[in-house]
Amino acid sequence: MAMDAISVIRTKRDRGELGDEQIDWVIDAYTRGEVADEQMSALAMAILLNGMNRREIARWTAAMIASGERMDFSSLSRPTADKHSTGGVGDKITLPLAPLVAACGAAVPQLSGRGLGHTGGTLDKLESIPGWRALLSNEEMLHVLDTTGAVICAAGDGLAPADKKLYALRDVTGTVEAIPLIASSIMSKKIAEGTGSLVLDVKVGTGAFMKTIEDARELASTMVGLGTDHGVRTVALLTDMATPLGLTAGNALEVRESVEVLAGGGPADVVELTIALAREMLDAAGIKDADPAKALADGSAMDVWRRMIRAQGGDPDAELPVAREQHVIKAPSSGVLTRLDAYDIGVAAWRLGAGRARKEDPVQAGAGVEMHAKPGDTVTEGRPLLTLHTDTPDRFAYALQAIEGSFDIAAAGTNFTPSPVVLERIA
Amino acid sequence: MAMDAISVIRTKRDRGELGDEQIDWVIDAYTRGEVADEQMSALAMAILLNGMNRREIARWTAAMIASGERMDFSSLSRPTADKHSTGGVGDKITLPLAPLVAACGAAVPQLSGRGLGHTGGTLDKLESIPGWRALLSNEEMLHVLDTTGAVICAAGDGLAPADKKLYALRDVTGTVEAIPLIASSIMSKKIAEGTGSLVLDVKVGTGAFMKTIEDARELASTMVGLGTDHGVRTVALLTDMATPLGLTAGNALEVRESVEVLAGGGPADVVELTIALAREMLDAAGIKDADPAKALADGSAMDVWRRMIRAQGGDPDAELPVAREQHVIKAPSSGVLTRLDAYDIGVAAWRLGAGRARKEDPVQAGAGVEMHAKPGDTVTEGRPLLTLHTDTPDRFAYALQAIEGSFDIAAAGTNFTPSPVVLERIA
Repeated sequence: MAMDAISVIRTKRDRGELGDEQIDWVIDAYTRGEVADEQMSALAMAILLNGMNRREIARWTAAMIASGERMDFSSLSRPTADKHSTGGVGDKITLPLAPLVAACGAAVPQLSGRGLGHTGGTLDKLESIPGWRALLSNEEMLHVLDTTGAVICAAGDGLAPADKKLYALRDVTGTVEAIPLIASSIMSKKIAEGTGSLVLDVKVGTGAFMKTIEDARELASTMVGLGTDHGVRTVALLTDMATPLGLTAGNALEVRESVEVLAGGGPADVVELTIALAREMLDAAGIKDADPAKALADGSAMDVWRRMIRAQGGDPDAELPVAREQHVIKAPSSGVLTRLDAYDIGVAAWRLGAGRARKEDPVQAGAGVEMHAKPGDTVTEGRPLLTLHTDTPDRFAYALQAIEGSFDIAAAGTNFTPSPVVLERIA
Repeated sequence: MAMDAISVIRTKRDRGELGDEQIDWVIDAYTRGEVADEQMSALAMAILLNGMNRREIARWTAAMIASGERMDFSSLSRPTADKHSTGGVGDKITLPLAPLVAACGAAVPQLSGRGLGHTGGTLDKLESIPGWRALLSNEEMLHVLDTTGAVICAAGDGLAPADKKLYALRDVTGTVEAIPLIASSIMSKKIAEGTGSLVLDVKVGTGAFMKTIEDARELASTMVGLGTDHGVRTVALLTDMATPLGLTAGNALEVRESVEVLAGGGPADVVELTIALAREMLDAAGIKDADPAKALADGSAMDVWRRMIRAQGGDPDAELPVAREQHVIKAPSSGVLTRLDAYDIGVAAWRLGAGRARKEDPVQAGAGVEMHAKPGDTVTEGRPLLTLHTDTPDRFAYALQAIEGSFDIAAAGTNFTPSPVVLERIA
């Protein structure tokens, strides 16, 4: 029987199961432009509301992989270890993590994205380093990976073009938040990229796409299943995103904090998560006896970072941009900080100029939010709690609206235990 | 707060209630092209799956009316009485009904459509009359209505343009079957048209959009509520569409049958439904003491028909087109016909050339299915049961596939009572 878009849409709309042929046809026809955007968005909404089972998600992912080219890392002398984060506020972990895992013996290809909305983008952060280039050809990418052990760059157009088209469509049609579509979008790119192992950092909390541990668990196990089915050793950590990671949210601000971690310092939560993810990546890549904590302490991770930045045109010794204007928010009372909302801080950083409203907008390298305390810390009335950074001071008022109600301070001596960074492990 | 398409989509996606401002904005912005097709189709799917309440449907309908012009029949000396059928197989009722109700004293404006899929279109049927024109200007339409008492023509582009755009979108995105959208589509056009009263013929059964009495009831009471809220006296009859209406499905075939009814003859079910709807229309228009049965018997309805056809360029005495080829299906056994499936007969007529696959396709005037028996009738083995008509005999095989399994014959003497034509009345 001939396929048509309406019958595929109706199947899912009426809570049916999509057949393999239907999925293969609709992804291919959409990529070729035969299925129209308005048909795919109706299908995406039906999938969001009625779900897909494991078989459907696996086939959907395979069809997206088949829509484009596959990369091949088999010429590399080291095992590849990849990581993906579902995105959060202050999530600069890729920056110290990639050179750290490379310093421990793996090849770490990180095809990364830009920020949209309140979450930052790894490429935006690295572009605050003078001279650094995100766009590499496949050959350049393999060369940097081979010679330095790690590469962080933009994904090429050839990888899962169906996903690229569908992702842009979901972004404007209110269909981003569908777990089957999120899982297949992430995993189609990772599998097409050809990594041997993958560690997923699935964020949970106000600053993440997944607001509840249940949704995060469902997304994580869906992705672990997809990776495993395609022969990629895949593990997921569910990690806290109720609070921002580290003490900075913003592009150059986060690069500076990442370099502190690579220098053996940095905020405890960033160090803890970087090492936890590094251990998982090395395990999944089959590398034994490496010690990530030691590679941070002895400067070997920093060496890889410097080579990697330089290989992509960046100057690791250059001064990082600083925003022209600062505004300090003081603690309104003394006591224990018990809440610092990741979403609110992310929105504030976004409004200060660290993020973009539309894909084509530029970002400010120096803009963002600096935090002087994290939940569990003692704060003193009148002392700085947050510093806002921007080149365009008319943005302060708009950012301050987001900060309003973003933190709680309890009376001094209140017994309070902050959430752990790593909540669960799913393999 | 500024409106945007994504927040409107998310509201309905997350099972919320759309606000008046959201509805007004999204209909207006869609009509202007600011909301894209892919956004509206995602919203339509969310409405189909999550529903709208009475207030939302009323506002949605009002916004679609406001997207275009409104007509005004107040210059007419007679009260207006309009009718709408949700569409079925062999449903030629508008043809005898409009002149009949006009003969009884009402003004009957029938803005009609063309067939798509297995259901026929009133305009396609009338176009089988040599010379007859469906496209009239507003002035011509009012003139025909004023001078003959009835007019059947195409709706102008100015009436509810939002509906026109949305209907075309729903047709290709699997979102036709949403009761709130069906109800607001029908009622926005009828209310914008400016009729004082309206009778709805809501079809139920395999050949109709509404397959169950529950869905038909919901659609009917939604539309009655919308009409009443806008000051239009509105009544609905739920009528059977498990079996085709009358003994013909096809364009010229149905015109011929309609003229038989106007001449005082014709199939019992067509006569019964025509008179039942005429009584409701006259009641709703406030016309007492008229007798539709008498107006059929004494030729006064036929007089209006002849004047109406002539006023639109048609020759009521012209020979109607006849298909070039016929194929007779004989009864495979003797007994009582207990089922003749409306959907299957509709698909067969469509495939023979009476309907179109795409909006721009032509139809064959002579093509269709002639039925020699209806459920409850006695049939004899080897005698004709159905005659298929087409100009293109290579279509017979394809039509015969649809006929396969479309009827049941029980042993002679089986006690069988066919479904009544009118199932329920909702006011």
